[in-house]
Amino acid sequence: MVNETQHTCSASSSSKSDGGSSSGSESSKDSSRCSTPVLDADRHERLREKMRRRQDSGDKWFSLEFFPPRTANAAVNLISRFDRMGAGGPLFIDVTWHPAGDPGSDKETSSMIIANTAVNYCGLETILHMTCCNQTKDDITGHLQKAKRLGLKNIMALRGDPAGEEWEEEVEGFNYAVDLVKHIRNEFDDYFDICVAGYPKGHPEAESYEADLRHLKEKVFAGADFIITQLFFRSETFLKFMKDCQAIGITCPIIPGIFPIQGYHSLRQLVKLSKLEVPQEIKDVIEPIKDNDAAIRNYGVELAVSMCRELLDSGMVHGLHFYTLNREVATTEVLKRLGIWKEDPRRPLPWAVSAHPKRRVEDVRPIFWASRPKSYIYRTQEWDDFPNGRWGNSSSPAFGELKDYYLFYLKSKSPREELLKMWGEELTGEESVFEVFTCYITGEPNKNGHKVTCMPWNDDPLATETNLLKEQLEKVNRRGILTINSQPNINGKPSTDPIVGWGPSGGYVFQKAYLEFFTSSEIVTALLKVLKKYELRVNYHIVNVKGQNITNAPDLQPNAVTWGIFPGREIIQPTVVDPVSFLYWKDEAFALWIEQWAKLYEEESPSRMIIQYIHDNYYLVNLVDNDFPLENCLWQVVDDTFELLN
Amino acid sequence: MVNETQHTCSASSSSKSDGGSSSGSESSKDSSRCSTPVLDADRHERLREKMRRRQDSGDKWFSLEFFPPRTANAAVNLISRFDRMGAGGPLFIDVTWHPAGDPGSDKETSSMIIANTAVNYCGLETILHMTCCNQTKDDITGHLQKAKRLGLKNIMALRGDPAGEEWEEEVEGFNYAVDLVKHIRNEFDDYFDICVAGYPKGHPEAESYEADLRHLKEKVFAGADFIITQLFFRSETFLKFMKDCQAIGITCPIIPGIFPIQGYHSLRQLVKLSKLEVPQEIKDVIEPIKDNDAAIRNYGVELAVSMCRELLDSGMVHGLHFYTLNREVATTEVLKRLGIWKEDPRRPLPWAVSAHPKRRVEDVRPIFWASRPKSYIYRTQEWDDFPNGRWGNSSSPAFGELKDYYLFYLKSKSPREELLKMWGEELTGEESVFEVFTCYITGEPNKNGHKVTCMPWNDDPLATETNLLKEQLEKVNRRGILTINSQPNINGKPSTDPIVGWGPSGGYVFQKAYLEFFTSSEIVTALLKVLKKYELRVNYHIVNVKGQNITNAPDLQPNAVTWGIFPGREIIQPTVVDPVSFLYWKDEAFALWIEQWAKLYEEESPSRMIIQYIHDNYYLVNLVDNDFPLENCLWQVVDDTFELLN
Repeated sequence: MVNETQHTCSASSSSKSDGGSSSGSESSKDSSRCSTPVLDADRHERLREKMRRRQDSGDKWFSLEFFPPRTANAAVNLISRFDRMGAGGPLFIDVTWHPAGDPGSDKETSSMIIANTAVNYCGLETILHMTCCNQTKDDITGHLQKAKRLGLKNIMALRGDPAGEEWEEEVEGFNYAVDLVKHIRNEFDDYFDICVAGYPKGHPEAESYEADLRHLKEKVFAGADFIITQLFFRSETFLKFMKDCQAIGITCPIIPGIFPIQGYHSLRQLVKLSKLEVPQEIKDVIEPIKDNDAAIRNYGVELAVSMCRELLDSGMVHGLHFYTLNREVATTEVLKRLGIWKEDPRRPLPWAVSAHPKRRVEDVRPIFWASRPKSYIYRTQEWDDFPNGRWGNSSSPAFGELKDYYLFYLKSKSPREELLKMWGEELTGEESVFEVFTCYITGEPNKNGHKVTCMPWNDDPLATETNLLKEQLEKVNRRGILTINSQPNINGKPSTDPIVGWGPSGGYVFQKAYLEFFTSSEIVTALLKVLKKYELRVNYHIVNVKGQNITNAPDLQPNAVTWGIFPGREIIQPTVVDPVSFLYWKDEAFALWIEQWAKLYEEESPSRMIIQYIHDNYYLVNLVDNDFPLENCLWQVVDDTFELLN
Repeated sequence: MVNETQHTCSASSSSKSDGGSSSGSESSKDSSRCSTPVLDADRHERLREKMRRRQDSGDKWFSLEFFPPRTANAAVNLISRFDRMGAGGPLFIDVTWHPAGDPGSDKETSSMIIANTAVNYCGLETILHMTCCNQTKDDITGHLQKAKRLGLKNIMALRGDPAGEEWEEEVEGFNYAVDLVKHIRNEFDDYFDICVAGYPKGHPEAESYEADLRHLKEKVFAGADFIITQLFFRSETFLKFMKDCQAIGITCPIIPGIFPIQGYHSLRQLVKLSKLEVPQEIKDVIEPIKDNDAAIRNYGVELAVSMCRELLDSGMVHGLHFYTLNREVATTEVLKRLGIWKEDPRRPLPWAVSAHPKRRVEDVRPIFWASRPKSYIYRTQEWDDFPNGRWGNSSSPAFGELKDYYLFYLKSKSPREELLKMWGEELTGEESVFEVFTCYITGEPNKNGHKVTCMPWNDDPLATETNLLKEQLEKVNRRGILTINSQPNINGKPSTDPIVGWGPSGGYVFQKAYLEFFTSSEIVTALLKVLKKYELRVNYHIVNVKGQNITNAPDLQPNAVTWGIFPGREIIQPTVVDPVSFLYWKDEAFALWIEQWAKLYEEESPSRMIIQYIHDNYYLVNLVDNDFPLENCLWQVVDDTFELLN
């Protein structure tokens, strides 16, 4: 590309031959501003821009609708579902607004908090639904302000269902979705992307199909950016609707709402609510198999796939919106069969990024929360700025406290009975704890025949990368080096490496070997003697629950342990071992012994006392081998330690 | 070391077992502050701290005194001397204050500007002398404010010589050095380190030796940090003085002033000014050889070495201060024979750091000024902050303009006649320019038998590192790829490597191959075709004097081309190729053709027109090979280009 310098940057483009530069006098303050190299253009675009870019590139996409769950346990499950379904690459998800469920509150199950979780903790572009009827202007503004504060950037503006049979318009009130659209644009300018609902068969309460189209046009002209439609059963219905919209001058994207039939009852309920009529040919198939859930779901998938194919083949449809009913199987199946479920193994950074706009530039985190990214996000949610480029040694990161509410994110996905089976109904000593750690590493069943698929510090099975170290990890865990985090050293693997790669292609990634574990004071004493031999090579931090801290880190500076070199970019160093935040992590890591493990047992029970003893007496240790081009010496350090003990 | 977390950092050290963290609420703003890893503790210490640290470690040191030169040419030479003598590792240098020479002015030869140059451009810890008699309070405050603004941190507070024979004390005026010391402490608190003069034989105007000691004590008690003495001829003189000082309670460092006799006349003049008596045994040796400069200098070196040895052996002396008389040979000889001249090949960063306190955190610069660091410092002197960690792509670096005064730093050390011999008395065409570039690279004499030891873009012979590329550079310069900057790719050499190493030991340094050159538009056209094949691997910026700019840099982001990985530290990336600053550099690089080369010739002369033609028509090109672990492909790119042309 040829750039005339005038438009591409502020540098002088004068052609003086005397060497004079008319470079002006931009604020010199700005000259040293740090900023993140653009690793992931996606992170910097708003939803409507992403939609436009995907449409321009001919790249088909999908989105997923969820409703807020009723219980805290269901919320934990829904968040896991966000993570799993997020892996397929939805352009966005949306969360419905349930006026009866206190949707704007701070409850774990409110629409607001579920949408907040999707954006911040799952890194998903999210639309929050919002209804306006029967609400005051102040209430609505309050909800919108809160949404903005939480990092939500997209609102689906709806009327909602009027209360009572005899609904009358309120003067000065919000009577229609268009009022809400106008209100959002008035009060928040262009901050939000706004979506509105379209009715391919016309709104059931509209005077006519044509009148409803005119209402839709009003909503768009009031400032809506795109339309998602109500479900329908035939592709012709949507395509006709789309042409009719275009005919009256609606030019924004219109996204068909797809409802894969997943069961007889859910279909009936939805039809009742939406006042839609199920076509006879569908009824004919369903009625005879109404008690066979699997058969109905298979039929639903079939039907959805063929309808979606017709829509995509029409050339008028670029994205499909799925009403998931909070279920995974049918929608995933449809998406996979359509070939638009795309699990992209590439990661912009080694850790999962949050979609909060404040976190757009974030590109450095301490390694400690590698298996607990949601906890890290929670504990840093009050930060105004996020580190980029450098973590910085003068920083005093003020991590949020471990409060009750936090336990929601801290909660394991597995129920108590399951955890007891994995971690032991009854512990007989420290060795039985070693055994649990070892089984988690090896993937072998414990002595009662149960696989250990999670630990208090890792709610998921062992990462692929950790698998590279499996053999050595097994060996040391058996002997009481209870590992909770580790990474191998990497000396310049391609950034596209399926296991350790991240960032744009064409780059090289590097790592220093890292090992973090709990261990007894006896082992720590021997370890410290051994570490003297490795003084220049290995950095260590050793701390107990009381905060007694032993380290050889120079000036308490952070140590970069993961970094990447990319074409045409500055160096990225996304993970550091930071001495200061380690002490915040220490509180969390020790607390997990008690909160997640000890409390499974009765107070004063021997099992609980064993965990309490470990919590009170063990040390949390982290080791970094700085010599990344050489063979990882940390295993030798541990071997030397055991040798010294014998 | 065991650190209780309370003193070492702000993290929680509570021993709560409930997992609560009492982390307080430090400003979250600070949490993402960038800051430089401490690469070089020296950069962060003030002079008196450095002095104390060297004394504590038993490490002997030296310092050097210079006076401001009389002409601009002499100033250029003195600055080169600063660089050469700075290589021996002086703890500081000092610059005397000449009331007659407008010492506080902006003239190239003023004390203020010479001291400024030493600090900012030569990276030397510097003391500026300042005298106070016959000056108003406002004048003195003005000088001090200016010194502070320029980054000077140390003042030698002197009385100065009163004007006229019949000097009388001014009421409320500055009559003695102690008044100046008090004034500095009153007005500038602890900002400056203050040095005062001591007279081992007593000040010539003092009532008595004892009275003079009392005056000295007053100066120290008024806030002076250390003492430098007047010259003396016998070590006993100094050692007695030192004991006498200690006896009356002067405990600050006292640094002996050493004057290596360098010639008969300079000795006589100094003796006259200082009113000192030369011991008979010295006179006896010197008088007979007074016309033999070399013999006197040899004797002076001998004498200084043996006196310095006596001082150091006494155990009371930790540092030696040399009156250089702006000469190099004798002092360097003495220092080398004493074994305290220490050329340290280790560099904290790949480029020479400035000693200005504002630049303490600076650790990233564009590669373009690699051979012109003083120019870079000059052009960025108005910046309030300096990049560290990241250069940043949103930055609009406002580089200072290329003004007349700037030409002082831009000026070559070689006189015009010398340059003409090197670069050609008469150019016959573009090829004769190619020849000059080629001779500079090869070190071979040109066709008139003169070696080309500098170029407008490089005032010094080829860097050792560039020598690694000599063979290929020669080949391409012969064919009109006129190289002005280059570096080889480096894939993880030890940071102690004598050629490409930098930073603390135990680290690894890396580089992407870089090549920057002027070339004709014909070659550029072919080059651009060839570069298509290397699109993903090679980043390029191609610009002519008019600012027409061709690049494939993503989003005008900077490309890190030198970086280092060190134990226990964040990544350092001291050099970048920045698209924005390249356009500022472009103005300077093109201007050098005219200012330094074309102007050697008569206006309208064929030689001048050839340089003017190149200036007007050639392109400045830079290339980066991003694939640093592979063999440098830039030579292949150039070969392909020539092949395409044939």
